[in-house]
Amino acid sequence: MERVSMEVHADLQRERAAATISSEHFAEWWAGGRERLEERRALERYFFDDPEFNDPKHISFMSYKELYEHSVAKGTRFLAKLREWQRLRAPVDGTGGLTGGLDIKTLHDFRLLISGPLGTALFQQSFPLRLHFAMFLPTLLNQGDEEQKKQWLERAWHMDGIIGTYAQTELGHGTFIRGLETRADYDAEHEEFVLNTPSLTAYKWWPGNMGQTANMVVVLAQLYIKGKHYGLQPFLVRIRNEQTHEPEPGIDVGDIGAKLGANAVNNGFLGFRNVRIPRDQMLMKNAKVLPDGTFVKGPEPLLLYGTMVFVRVLIVHDVMVGLLQAATIATRYAAVRRQSPIEPNAPEPQILDHLTQQAKIFPQIARGVCYRLAADFLWQFYQRIMQQLEAGNRKGLPELHALSCCLKSVCTQESNEGIDALRKACGGQGYLASANFDNIYGLATAAYTYEGEYTVLLLQTARFLVRQYEDSLKRKVLPDSINYMRDTTRLRWTKNLLANAVRALEIVAASKVRVAWEQIRLERKRGQSAQQAANLAGIQLSTAAAAHARAFLARNSLRELKKLQRNLKPELGGVLQQLVEIFVYDTFLRQLGDILKWNHIAVVQVTQLEQRYEQLLRDFRPNAVALVDGFDFHDRVLGSTLGCYDGRIYERLMEEARKNPLNEEPVNSSFRMHLQPLMRGKL
Amino acid sequence: MERVSMEVHADLQRERAAATISSEHFAEWWAGGRERLEERRALERYFFDDPEFNDPKHISFMSYKELYEHSVAKGTRFLAKLREWQRLRAPVDGTGGLTGGLDIKTLHDFRLLISGPLGTALFQQSFPLRLHFAMFLPTLLNQGDEEQKKQWLERAWHMDGIIGTYAQTELGHGTFIRGLETRADYDAEHEEFVLNTPSLTAYKWWPGNMGQTANMVVVLAQLYIKGKHYGLQPFLVRIRNEQTHEPEPGIDVGDIGAKLGANAVNNGFLGFRNVRIPRDQMLMKNAKVLPDGTFVKGPEPLLLYGTMVFVRVLIVHDVMVGLLQAATIATRYAAVRRQSPIEPNAPEPQILDHLTQQAKIFPQIARGVCYRLAADFLWQFYQRIMQQLEAGNRKGLPELHALSCCLKSVCTQESNEGIDALRKACGGQGYLASANFDNIYGLATAAYTYEGEYTVLLLQTARFLVRQYEDSLKRKVLPDSINYMRDTTRLRWTKNLLANAVRALEIVAASKVRVAWEQIRLERKRGQSAQQAANLAGIQLSTAAAAHARAFLARNSLRELKKLQRNLKPELGGVLQQLVEIFVYDTFLRQLGDILKWNHIAVVQVTQLEQRYEQLLRDFRPNAVALVDGFDFHDRVLGSTLGCYDGRIYERLMEEARKNPLNEEPVNSSFRMHLQPLMRGKL
Repeated sequence: MERVSMEVHADLQRERAAATISSEHFAEWWAGGRERLEERRALERYFFDDPEFNDPKHISFMSYKELYEHSVAKGTRFLAKLREWQRLRAPVDGTGGLTGGLDIKTLHDFRLLISGPLGTALFQQSFPLRLHFAMFLPTLLNQGDEEQKKQWLERAWHMDGIIGTYAQTELGHGTFIRGLETRADYDAEHEEFVLNTPSLTAYKWWPGNMGQTANMVVVLAQLYIKGKHYGLQPFLVRIRNEQTHEPEPGIDVGDIGAKLGANAVNNGFLGFRNVRIPRDQMLMKNAKVLPDGTFVKGPEPLLLYGTMVFVRVLIVHDVMVGLLQAATIATRYAAVRRQSPIEPNAPEPQILDHLTQQAKIFPQIARGVCYRLAADFLWQFYQRIMQQLEAGNRKGLPELHALSCCLKSVCTQESNEGIDALRKACGGQGYLASANFDNIYGLATAAYTYEGEYTVLLLQTARFLVRQYEDSLKRKVLPDSINYMRDTTRLRWTKNLLANAVRALEIVAASKVRVAWEQIRLERKRGQSAQQAANLAGIQLSTAAAAHARAFLARNSLRELKKLQRNLKPELGGVLQQLVEIFVYDTFLRQLGDILKWNHIAVVQVTQLEQRYEQLLRDFRPNAVALVDGFDFHDRVLGSTLGCYDGRIYERLMEEARKNPLNEEPVNSSFRMHLQPLMRGKL
Repeated sequence: MERVSMEVHADLQRERAAATISSEHFAEWWAGGRERLEERRALERYFFDDPEFNDPKHISFMSYKELYEHSVAKGTRFLAKLREWQRLRAPVDGTGGLTGGLDIKTLHDFRLLISGPLGTALFQQSFPLRLHFAMFLPTLLNQGDEEQKKQWLERAWHMDGIIGTYAQTELGHGTFIRGLETRADYDAEHEEFVLNTPSLTAYKWWPGNMGQTANMVVVLAQLYIKGKHYGLQPFLVRIRNEQTHEPEPGIDVGDIGAKLGANAVNNGFLGFRNVRIPRDQMLMKNAKVLPDGTFVKGPEPLLLYGTMVFVRVLIVHDVMVGLLQAATIATRYAAVRRQSPIEPNAPEPQILDHLTQQAKIFPQIARGVCYRLAADFLWQFYQRIMQQLEAGNRKGLPELHALSCCLKSVCTQESNEGIDALRKACGGQGYLASANFDNIYGLATAAYTYEGEYTVLLLQTARFLVRQYEDSLKRKVLPDSINYMRDTTRLRWTKNLLANAVRALEIVAASKVRVAWEQIRLERKRGQSAQQAANLAGIQLSTAAAAHARAFLARNSLRELKKLQRNLKPELGGVLQQLVEIFVYDTFLRQLGDILKWNHIAVVQVTQLEQRYEQLLRDFRPNAVALVDGFDFHDRVLGSTLGCYDGRIYERLMEEARKNPLNEEPVNSSFRMHLQPLMRGKL
C-alpha cells in the first residue's frame, strides 16, 4: 500500500479533533519512549521512502513461484540496505555486522526487527532468510563448541558462502521429538557420521528456507555409535554446493508447497542417503563423540530451555501486534464506513456508532493492549530467570516455562479468533486481499502450531499446575504466579467490579486444577496408569491451564495498570483504565459458564457487570480512532486499503482493483477461446 | 487430488473392520435413498473419470490471472459435458436444457449441484459462471413480465449470446439497500432509461462473474421520472458487446481483485456514464413505467422474499457440507497420524485416541449432522410456506423468515469456527494448501457476510422475537418455533439429560428475549426513540436471536432423531443418538454462562452432564471413521492430501510437494541473481 497523497477523510478528521487523548503521547509510551519511537520511525522512512521496496504488483496476484523469487530478491536487498544503515549509524564499529558484533542479543534484536512492523510490512508472507538468523545462527552459538564457533560462526554471520536453516520436524513426527527417525551413524574408521532417512516419514519437513534457499542445515538426528543409540544430537550438514547450489550427492531437497500464509518462507523437505560429514560437524558444546567413538555426555543444556521460552515470549508479542494491526484497520474502516440508519430518514451513521460494532472491535483493542502488558511482564521475568540460570540457579525455570506455555497458547488462539472477527466486522471488504487481513491471519494462525502446539503446551502447563496444587495441600510456599491457589476463600462480591472479576477468574482456575487433580486420582484408583489417567483428564487439564492463563492476564493487567497510572498523563491513564476494564469484563463474560459454576454470583450482579461493560464501550468510543493511531502503524505496515491513516477507503479499494493484472486488457483471452464458443452453442 | 492407487493404510483398515455400523447404510440414508446415492455417484464418476477435469497443476500454485483463465476454460467444458449428460439420460426431452425445461426448480437444482460436492470438487474457488444461473436467470424469471420473459429467458437459458449477472451491492452500500446510489432517469422523449453512477461509492461492487465474464447485467437502480424518485427497480443492461466482448460505451467494468477464497468468481466493479437502455429493459413484473412516464405500482413482490429465504436455506446446507468435509479430513488424518505416547515406552498412538483430540473433532461431526437435520426441516418448512404464498396466504412468512435468518447466521458462524478448529486439529499439515482447508474455509466464511451479514440477520430475527414476546404476554397463539416462550415453568432437572439440556437452552432464549424487550422499554422511558433504544439493546437482541437458533437446533435434532429411529437400522439409530447427544451437550456447555445465569442447576448436575459428554466421545470413537466414510465424499471432493479414503497421508503429502513448480528446477534463478552475490558480500 503506497501512501497516496489524499486529504484525510472528514470523518477521521472529526474523530481526531474530538478525542480527549493525544495519539502522540500514547505512541511515545507504547514505543517505550521518545527515542525508540523516533528510531523506529527513522528506520521505517529509510525503507519506505526507497522506491526499490515498493512492490510493483500486489502479492495476491503473484503465483507461488513468482512470490518466492520476488521475496528472495527483496530479502537480499533488505539485508544489504540494513547493513548500510548500520554503517551510517555506527561507522566506527567496523565489524560489518548487521547491528554490531554477534551475540545472542544481536540475533534477538534482528528477530524482533524481522517479525516486527517493518519486517511484516516488507515481507507480508514472511522474510525468506529468516531461519538463517532466527534458528541457524542461534543454534551454532548455543550448541557449537569453541572450536566450531571459531570455524563457522563468523562466516555464517557474514553469510560468507553460507545460508543456513535448522531441521528438526519430520513428515511423520512433530511434537514428540524422541520419535524422530533421521539417523547419524558414527563411522570411527573414517571419523565421519553417515546420515540417513530410513523411511518416508523420516523426511525432514517444514524447515523454513530449506527448499531452494539454504545450503547448510543443522539437522537433529538420532546418534548411533556401533549400533548403540545415544539420543538426539545436532549435526551441521552442507546440502547444496557453495558454488553451484546444486544439491549435494545423497541429498533430496525441495519445497513442500503452498500454505495459508507465509508463502515466502520456502519451507522444505530433506532426505539423506548415506550422506557423510566429518566428526567435527556434530555440534559438541554439550555431548561429544571422540574420534574413537567414545560418547561423552554433556551437562544438561539449560540455556536451550531458555531459548525455547524466549521464542514463546516473542510469539505472544507477535500475535499481539497482528491483533492490533487488525483492530486498527477495523476501527478506521468503521469510522468511515456508513450504513443502516439508526433513526429512519436520518443519514446512515458511521458503523462505529452501532453498539454491536463497538462490541466487535473494542474488546480486541483492549485485549491487544493487555497482551502487551503481559508480554512486557513475561520479558522481564524471562530476563530475571536467565540471569539466575547463568548463575547456575534453575529454580525459577519451571514457573517461567509453565507461564510461557499457557500464555503462548491462549494469546495465540484468542488473537486468531480476534483477527478473524475483526475481518468479519469489515463485512465483504474485509474478505478482499487488499484489506490485508489474510496475511495478518496467515502469520498469526501459524503460531497456533509452531514452537509448541496449542493443546500440547496447555498440557505442559497443566502438569506443573497439578504438581503445584499438590504442594499447596502440603502448605509449601508457591511461586508468585500460582500463589492465588492457596487462597481458598469464596468470592465476596464488592463494589470493586474489577477486583471481583479477577478473583472470580482465579477461583475458576484453582477449581479447575483441583477437579483435574481429583479426576486423575479417581482414575488411578480405578486402576489406570498415571499416563492413561492424565489422558482421561485431558479436557480438564487443558482447560485448567487456559483458565490459569486468563486469570494471570486479568490480574497482570490490573497490576500493571496501577503502576502505569503513576507515570502516565491522567487522560492516557483514564483510557488505559477503560481498556483494562473492557478486557477483564470481556474475559469474565466469555468465561461466564465456569465462573457461575465455581462462584456464587447473583443474576443481578452479572447484569451489573454487563451494563458496566456496555457503558465502557460507549465511553471508549470517542477515543477509539485516536487510540489506534497511537499504535503508530505506518500505512505500509498495515498494508490495507481499509486501514490507511487518511481513511480514503473507497479511493484505495478502487485504486487497488484497477491495478489487478486481469484489468490490464479490456477483453481476456478466455472470451475467444471459451466464452464465445459457449455462447454460440459450439461446445 | 487424484486417486492414486495405493493400498489402504492399515490403521484405516482396522478402523473400518472394527466399526459396528455400515458406512454404506449410512450413506444411503444420508443421500436420501439408494437411487439418489447411485445417481450422485454416477455423475461424479462421469466427471472424475474424465482426464479433462483433472487439473494439471494444483490451483495453489497459480497466479490470480491464471486461476481465472483456468476456471473459465473448465467451467465452459463443465457446462458442455453436463448438457451431454442430460442428453444421454433424457434423450427425448429435446429442450436442450441443462436438466430439462426452465423453471425455478430447475435453477434451484442447478444451484444445488454447483454448490454441492461435485461443484466444489471441480471448482474449489467457485464456479465462474455461477451467477448466471444463481441470480441472473432467477431474476429474469421472477421479475420479468411475460413479454420480457419471452424475449430474454430462452436465449439466456441457452446462453445464446448472453452471460449474465446481478448487480445490487455498491462500493459504499451493502445491507441497507435503500441507500444505493446508482440511478436510472426515464427519458420519455426517447422512451429510454439513462443510467448513471453519480459517485465513487455508487460503483457496483462485488457481483460475481462481472469483471471479465458477463455481458449482461440486471442492475438495481433508483428510478427517477421527471426528477421524482420511485424507489429501486431492476434494469437489464448490456455491458459488453456480444461480438467483441469490449465494454459498451459509457461502461467502466473490471475485476475487484484477489480475496480469501472464491478467486474464480471474477467479482467485478461497474460504473455507468449516461448508459441508455430501452424502456422495456426495466423488469416490469411488479412495478411498470408506461411510455409516457406514468409509474404504475405493482403488487408486493412476495415471491421475492421467498427467494431470499431459499438462498438462506441453501447456505445452511452449504456450510454444513463444508464443515463435514473438514471433519472427514480431520478424522481420517487423526486415525493415521501417530504422536505422543500415552504410556511411556509404548508406541505412539493414533492421535484420535487422545481424548483432547476427540473433543476437537467429534462435536464438529455431530454439529454437521444436526445442521443437516435442521436444513431438512427448513427446506420442508420453506416448501410449505411457498405453497401458502402461491395461494395468497402470507401468514407463515415472518416465522420462516425469522428462523432462516438466525439459522443462517449461527450455522455459518459456527461452521466457520468448526472448519478452522478442524484445520488446527491437523497441526502444521492442516496449514498446507494441499490439505484443502483453505478452500473449504474460504467458501464457508464468505457466507458469513453474503446474503445477509451475521449481525444484521440476527437483528431481523430479534425484531420478530420481541414482537412475538409481546404477543405472548397478551396470550395469543404463537407460531410453532416460538411456542416454547409461553412455557414459563422453571427447569426441573430430571434423569433425562437431553430433555434437561434442550429445556435449559429454551429458557435461555426466552429469558434473553425478555431482557432485550425490557431494555428497549427502559430506554424508551428514558426518552430514547424506538430506533435508538433498539441500538442500545443491540447486544441483547442479537444474542437473543442466536440463543433462539441454538434452542431450535437442539430441539429439532431431538425431534428428528425420534422420527428417524423408527425407520433406521438400530445400530445406525444408536450412533445418531450419540451424535445428537454430543451436539446438544456441546451446545449446552458452550452456552453454560447463559444457562447458569437463567436456570438453577447445581454444580453436580453440570458435572454429570460433562461426564456423560466425555463418555459419549469415547463411545463414538470406534465408529468415527466408518461414520465419516458414510458422508460418501469422493477423494476429489475432499481434495485433500490428509483426507483420502486410503489414508496414505505421507505418500500424498510428498507427491503433492514434488509437483510444486518450484521443484521443477534443481536450482532456482534466484541463486545466481541474488543469493550468490549476497554470499560473496557483493550486495
